[in-house]
Amino acid sequence: MNKYWSSIVKNIKPYTPGEQPKDKKYIKLNTNENPYPPSPRVIAAIKEAANEDLKLYPDPNCDALKAAIAQRYALTVEEIFTGNGSDEILAFTFLAFFDPGKTIIFPDISYSFYPVYANLFQVPYDPIPLREDFSLPIESFDKPNSGIVIANPNAPTGKYLPIEYIRTILEHNMNSAVILDEAYIAFGGESAIKLVSDFPNLLVIHTLSKSHSLAGLRVAYAVGNRGLILALERIKNSINNYTLDRLAITGAIEAIKDDDYFLATRAKIIRTRERVYGELLGMGFQCIESKANFLFISNPRIRADFLFKELRQKGILVRYFNLPRIENHLRVTIGSDEEMDFFLTRIKEIISD
Amino acid sequence: MNKYWSSIVKNIKPYTPGEQPKDKKYIKLNTNENPYPPSPRVIAAIKEAANEDLKLYPDPNCDALKAAIAQRYALTVEEIFTGNGSDEILAFTFLAFFDPGKTIIFPDISYSFYPVYANLFQVPYDPIPLREDFSLPIESFDKPNSGIVIANPNAPTGKYLPIEYIRTILEHNMNSAVILDEAYIAFGGESAIKLVSDFPNLLVIHTLSKSHSLAGLRVAYAVGNRGLILALERIKNSINNYTLDRLAITGAIEAIKDDDYFLATRAKIIRTRERVYGELLGMGFQCIESKANFLFISNPRIRADFLFKELRQKGILVRYFNLPRIENHLRVTIGSDEEMDFFLTRIKEIISD
Repeated sequence: MNKYWSSIVKNIKPYTPGEQPKDKKYIKLNTNENPYPPSPRVIAAIKEAANEDLKLYPDPNCDALKAAIAQRYALTVEEIFTGNGSDEILAFTFLAFFDPGKTIIFPDISYSFYPVYANLFQVPYDPIPLREDFSLPIESFDKPNSGIVIANPNAPTGKYLPIEYIRTILEHNMNSAVILDEAYIAFGGESAIKLVSDFPNLLVIHTLSKSHSLAGLRVAYAVGNRGLILALERIKNSINNYTLDRLAITGAIEAIKDDDYFLATRAKIIRTRERVYGELLGMGFQCIESKANFLFISNPRIRADFLFKELRQKGILVRYFNLPRIENHLRVTIGSDEEMDFFLTRIKEIISD
Repeated sequence: MNKYWSSIVKNIKPYTPGEQPKDKKYIKLNTNENPYPPSPRVIAAIKEAANEDLKLYPDPNCDALKAAIAQRYALTVEEIFTGNGSDEILAFTFLAFFDPGKTIIFPDISYSFYPVYANLFQVPYDPIPLREDFSLPIESFDKPNSGIVIANPNAPTGKYLPIEYIRTILEHNMNSAVILDEAYIAFGGESAIKLVSDFPNLLVIHTLSKSHSLAGLRVAYAVGNRGLILALERIKNSINNYTLDRLAITGAIEAIKDDDYFLATRAKIIRTRERVYGELLGMGFQCIESKANFLFISNPRIRADFLFKELRQKGILVRYFNLPRIENHLRVTIGSDEEMDFFLTRIKEIISD
């Protein structure tokens, strides 16, 4: 602490991202990165854009990127906001739609960045307890609130809420902005983007980090009614007009356009996930059915923190959250088949020791 | 306006950046971009980094970039913060060091983004009036305040405050964080980074946008006491852990390392600036002595908004601010010699019409 710190900075608890180790080479199953490289078209476009135009500011409105996204979903550019990763967009939504002092709601087990934003921007929150099986009791959203945030599929569980339930929550909360964080929707869920035209209160956030193998490029987008998008633009333009650099814009456009590549890598990840899911169940693990690119697992006979440490020693990083209700689970990213075979072999060794 | 907007988003006035025209090719003297391309080393490094590692998150702490900056200034990495442009870093400083409801001070004519941040984060501000000649009366900072922001050289005037005056302001305000925005310091001023070890209340912000011809890459950094840097890290990690993508980090490292290239392009811009300054004076313009990569000019016989429109019609963009006290001035970026010759010829035509 320091005498120059604001009262805000003194009281926040920043988010700790999954480890990016530098000490040695690990199999990284800890940050939900995609094991496959980005589309070759993305790489080629970035190499071409690495030229003297870097001396010029990027387009602050990212019109070309918005046009590519709009075309992909048959929307208008006014229904699209672009940002530096979904975390940045989420932060902006807290400023744009939630008021300091007015209570919002989100599940008690969800992306652990939501309470961080809430604390930073002094928005109180009332956690909605998930059921014992980590499913979402949608009737819990039928209570007074000044805003809603839901991750679907949920993090870190991977559990997916079918779109008809999302519709019900939206219908019951027409006076609240409902932020739907679909960071993992590409891996088997149905996006609620199709509900945007029916619900002026719905904002859907997607990221290219996982679905398009571009965690290193920092591009995400939000889709919603023009009024919601305008609010996000106003916040962005009160902080930083140019959140996406020229290379990120260029790469993201190609990623969006190369749908064949996206569909092929997604199919591989889903296939691997289902295989690993089956094998883990066979080994006695409890494993939530996942529509994300990770599995949330536990084992009644072995503590998760022990497993975490053993795996680390064997060169595999997974994610362990030391938080109530999930302190005996591990979140395991779906890597390539080779990586998952290595993981499964090591897991077998550990549990048979 | 929209029923889902927060009270904050309703009341802010976003910043409007200089035009990025798409209708035709202009000579762009309106956004203080560097007319010279980035170092060839930057381009080469980015092309090489455009590879499959883009599937992985960047280093959230930007350690390698911080190390390059630390080496450049003989500092430690704990004294350096990196961000997505100086605007983002400035926004973070408002959250990190200023409290809602407590009055900060900055000059009445300065970077017009400061009041935008103040409104967004509900920090009241008391403008320090510049003298008639746009010089800063440093004794005006000898009054109670909860924080100070100064651009040096100032924007949009280009006027430079020698470092001994900065020292005096710091000495007289040991209880306030003093944010020194040195976006244009590379073009002839002396940086206050050397004062950081003496003043725990000083944060100095630099950007690569202008000095290193990298407006399109979005990289800036702040230098200060470890306690101040830690506050910025806490804010950043409560918003977005990864504000710089892999390509931006890689390019910025090379830019910092290629000091010879930086010195050569900087010298060219200063030479051009001094020549254009002399020619404008000769044409009857009033022109503030500038240590930035732009000139702030006015002409007693021609209205600035008229000149602005005429230049635009002739294919030249400059910046016009319709704001009190400066509504009869234009800010003209220093381009290449060819661009400035074209500008001077057009100006001559307009004033002789």
